[in-house]
Amino acid sequence: MERKSDKMSYKYAYNTRDIKFILKEWLPIDEVLSYDRYKDYYGKDDLDTIIDQVRKVADEVIAPTAEDGENIGVRWEDGKVYIPPSFHQAHRFLQDQGWGASNFDKEGEGGLPFAVFGLLLEMLSAANPALMPYVGCAGAVANVIQLYANEELKKKFLPKLLNGTWGGTMCLTEPSAGSDVGDMLSKAFLTDEQGIYKIKGQKIFITVGDRDDVENIIHLYLARVEGAASGTKGLSLFIVPKFWINEDGSFSDNNVQCIGIEHKMGLKGQSTCQLVVGENNNCRGYLIGNPPDENGVGQGIMQMFNMMNEARLDTGRLATAVASNAYWNAKDYGKERIQGRLLTNPKSGRVTIDKHEDVKRMYLLNKATTEACRALLAKCYYYEDVREFAPDKERRKWAQNKLDMLTPLCKAYPSDEAWGLIAESLQSYGGYGYCEDYPAANSARDCKIWSIWEGTNFIQSMDLIGRKWMQGKGAIFADTLKEVQDFIGAYKERGYTPDGQYPLGLDKEMEHLERALKAYQGIQMMIAGYAQSEKLGLIGFYARRILTATAQLYCGYLLMDQAVIARKRIDELGKDHHDYNFYLGKVLSARYYLNNVVPNVWHIAELVRIGDTSVLEAPNEIFEY
Amino acid sequence: MERKSDKMSYKYAYNTRDIKFILKEWLPIDEVLSYDRYKDYYGKDDLDTIIDQVRKVADEVIAPTAEDGENIGVRWEDGKVYIPPSFHQAHRFLQDQGWGASNFDKEGEGGLPFAVFGLLLEMLSAANPALMPYVGCAGAVANVIQLYANEELKKKFLPKLLNGTWGGTMCLTEPSAGSDVGDMLSKAFLTDEQGIYKIKGQKIFITVGDRDDVENIIHLYLARVEGAASGTKGLSLFIVPKFWINEDGSFSDNNVQCIGIEHKMGLKGQSTCQLVVGENNNCRGYLIGNPPDENGVGQGIMQMFNMMNEARLDTGRLATAVASNAYWNAKDYGKERIQGRLLTNPKSGRVTIDKHEDVKRMYLLNKATTEACRALLAKCYYYEDVREFAPDKERRKWAQNKLDMLTPLCKAYPSDEAWGLIAESLQSYGGYGYCEDYPAANSARDCKIWSIWEGTNFIQSMDLIGRKWMQGKGAIFADTLKEVQDFIGAYKERGYTPDGQYPLGLDKEMEHLERALKAYQGIQMMIAGYAQSEKLGLIGFYARRILTATAQLYCGYLLMDQAVIARKRIDELGKDHHDYNFYLGKVLSARYYLNNVVPNVWHIAELVRIGDTSVLEAPNEIFEY
Repeated sequence: MERKSDKMSYKYAYNTRDIKFILKEWLPIDEVLSYDRYKDYYGKDDLDTIIDQVRKVADEVIAPTAEDGENIGVRWEDGKVYIPPSFHQAHRFLQDQGWGASNFDKEGEGGLPFAVFGLLLEMLSAANPALMPYVGCAGAVANVIQLYANEELKKKFLPKLLNGTWGGTMCLTEPSAGSDVGDMLSKAFLTDEQGIYKIKGQKIFITVGDRDDVENIIHLYLARVEGAASGTKGLSLFIVPKFWINEDGSFSDNNVQCIGIEHKMGLKGQSTCQLVVGENNNCRGYLIGNPPDENGVGQGIMQMFNMMNEARLDTGRLATAVASNAYWNAKDYGKERIQGRLLTNPKSGRVTIDKHEDVKRMYLLNKATTEACRALLAKCYYYEDVREFAPDKERRKWAQNKLDMLTPLCKAYPSDEAWGLIAESLQSYGGYGYCEDYPAANSARDCKIWSIWEGTNFIQSMDLIGRKWMQGKGAIFADTLKEVQDFIGAYKERGYTPDGQYPLGLDKEMEHLERALKAYQGIQMMIAGYAQSEKLGLIGFYARRILTATAQLYCGYLLMDQAVIARKRIDELGKDHHDYNFYLGKVLSARYYLNNVVPNVWHIAELVRIGDTSVLEAPNEIFEY
Repeated sequence: MERKSDKMSYKYAYNTRDIKFILKEWLPIDEVLSYDRYKDYYGKDDLDTIIDQVRKVADEVIAPTAEDGENIGVRWEDGKVYIPPSFHQAHRFLQDQGWGASNFDKEGEGGLPFAVFGLLLEMLSAANPALMPYVGCAGAVANVIQLYANEELKKKFLPKLLNGTWGGTMCLTEPSAGSDVGDMLSKAFLTDEQGIYKIKGQKIFITVGDRDDVENIIHLYLARVEGAASGTKGLSLFIVPKFWINEDGSFSDNNVQCIGIEHKMGLKGQSTCQLVVGENNNCRGYLIGNPPDENGVGQGIMQMFNMMNEARLDTGRLATAVASNAYWNAKDYGKERIQGRLLTNPKSGRVTIDKHEDVKRMYLLNKATTEACRALLAKCYYYEDVREFAPDKERRKWAQNKLDMLTPLCKAYPSDEAWGLIAESLQSYGGYGYCEDYPAANSARDCKIWSIWEGTNFIQSMDLIGRKWMQGKGAIFADTLKEVQDFIGAYKERGYTPDGQYPLGLDKEMEHLERALKAYQGIQMMIAGYAQSEKLGLIGFYARRILTATAQLYCGYLLMDQAVIARKRIDELGKDHHDYNFYLGKVLSARYYLNNVVPNVWHIAELVRIGDTSVLEAPNEIFEY
């Protein structure tokens, strides 16, 4: 076994075939490409080229910078944050190629469809997950400004945000207000200048909150205008630039200080900053939209949620990307590493480890689950295109509803699963997996924050159960389940195998999907019952598991939907076609997922039915022991 | 929120109550203390004092060294390994107190019972997991020498191993032979000196393989005598000292070189060494026991397995200790951190996070599972005492059989669960959990090796299914299941509540245990069926999940057994007794575990019944995508 260097070694191992399948064979991409926004710029035939090009850049330009994130890391000195020099170049490069903030320019030409861009970002995220917020946050800030700010502010801030000259952040969390956004202490005070407030407060965990590769940083800052209502409803959103921009374009200090950075378990190339704002009463911010109304209600949280919902998809994407890359690296290692004999044929001598059933199980678990997550996210990227650019208003609304339902799943499911998936990839290396000169350990350390930030996964689960289940009196979520029901029904009714069976050898899997759907409806009934009893607390107790069950059900449907297409292609192309193994893999992903993962839905239903009250009855004193 | 220092901050948060309960109220400790080995030294009344004393040492002497492991780490320079200076002192201190290698001295007086010592080691392991092998390995080496080496070797090596002047290691793994122990390349060549061989080879992943705090290091080194049989059966075990000990006690170089250390994800204070032995043909080792017989069969692997089985219990103990400490730290944090409002009573205002159902779920999951692991391990410590010191030979054999059955569970179950458990503890901190100045991230990084080393958890699962299920024609494992059956039967038959029901409100939980037992027996039947079909590969596919199901079933029984005792105590003592919350916690641990974890046994049974063949059918080419 050749030894690698002492330092962390990151490796890019992405394959693009599933991404191409999603875009060209699965999503209704023709619809998207027919929208006015895109029709003159992109055709279906361009997709392969774009994807291949980004794959190459991810591998050759971006991935080499990941090691600097780990080995050099981020340094805080005298109030300033220094990021690895190679990150400067990588950010600039992506921006110049049109894969940075400029893609959020709604007035600009040639923006990529969300469906395409989301999958490109996945490839780039895998190459250096720590780098992505440096590239992406400015675009998300620009998006909020485009949606809600006045023309003057747009003119002042958009050009340099969109061309990557300035960075951006989202400032929510405070030392005493994390999940409790509404309890934040940051304050805004009216000034004599129209639309300008004095800002005072402290923010923590601000991703890329300071950096040395941009001229200025534009913070979207949540604060409460003096006298506004308490809770989230009283919040307003401000543009707080690190440096105030004078009329002539020169900068003045705006009293925004970075007083430290976090020392994290992973993502060491990503600055996570503590900011103190207006300590000398000298920080100014521009209000976005209107001041609080006569009831003290501001527009801030609604505006910020636009960015937050984007960030929730980003989070799921990062988790999917890093888990996928860990899996593909593990599989590459497994092809070389000789160890053990086959259980089914021990006399044939030692084999490479990728031949063992348990190792193949680790791979197929990873392959199926990351494909499930990618499908879930890609569906949402598609809905983003529809919401933004579909000519029909009803259809835009329909897409928004779908996005509302799926966003908590997109954030929580990949970020929950990544920890276990990467652990299996790591395990497949044996002892080398625990060594930082192989890439699995790094991926494991990186992924853990994603179950926490942008609303913990418990918050996602309560968003799902407490809000999304009820939205539109329950009709919208019911419509999402109906999608699954209709899929099952369609294939039951007009199965296209000659004998009219379920399609092509997936009978058992379709049965599991149906059973999971029924079990899931049972969960909803039981939770409705608990909600109206003294067992209300059981909702909190089971919420995270129910979110998982929701994602497993919905992803089971998505993978089956893909498998049906793949199964047809196999029949069309035959076993000798170069794409045969890809399509076979899609069918096997679905089979693995439906036979090993989706049964968890009815298992969770049974746990909910048991209705264990141990946690509700437990006084906190028992945890002393 | 007060900010801590920039550097890693380790915190000891252990509670001793469950340990005292296990020793004084649950295990048949009177039997152990009546053995000749112990009866003049220890009484039941001494146990509290011993436990409290070690708890204090763990907190005040050992835990402060953990940060040095992370912040100073291990350094390799010019072929030598330097460990943190505070580790030198901590090792010496434990040794001097009688909690080091000396406890393995079978001739010595006052050795602690395994049952006691194992639980003390758990407390110490939690205080600094990286330190423990520096302390423990010499004792394990001494144990093998006591069992198998001749008097001359005993005289030469035991005194300084047992008093901690010399360290010890177990040298198995080689670059191309990890799980494949039998394929190792290390060779031993006869010399003119009786019992002395020239040794040549390379070993990797040698825990505490070099260090600067001991005079000498005694390697137990597996190698193949020239001409011996291939595979594990041809291996012999050698004592290979780092420095050769001359007649006069002086040292000569023995050509054992440390050529590097691993850069690990965690346990950074623990040296993990690459050793090259006999590069100049100048390394000598003492053969333990007899040379290979006329068939080329050596005694090495059998001898080494003695140490290996110890190491497997150590591994489960380390995982249990680190997960427990992470949980208790999380719970301490949760008492202080204010965030959110109660789902069941939002109007009462913000609460500390330990009041939320989902956070309490995280705690109770951790509490119940770590108590389950502790119970499983403690049962084995007890069996170790019986095996070694019971006067009756049959009983010693009985205990050995129990140990054989439970060892793979002890190694794999805690080390599999730790990753998920610690992730939940980490999650409960919110963003701070991801920061190294809180202790959860460190625990997460530390724990991942334990599912890999000392035989991966897949190897454990195949040991269970392929070997332990069959041992004694299946009678021994059946006896282990009968223990569970008898427990259920006894309480069904002579339930001691007035109405003759199952004891004391645990009806539902006892039903779950019974259902799990039946489901488990179903798993065994199905696997027997697969073993005789072309689906043999399904055994490898389901093995790890079956090991988990085995542990969950057996641990469910152990926790119920403890809960029944606790339930009685509650009735005896009443709610105002200072121990009430402890006993209530034991009952709630069992209820949580039986209602949320044990149902996984029948879930896994159902997955096995589904008999998914996706992995068996998958050509490796599909993993390219």
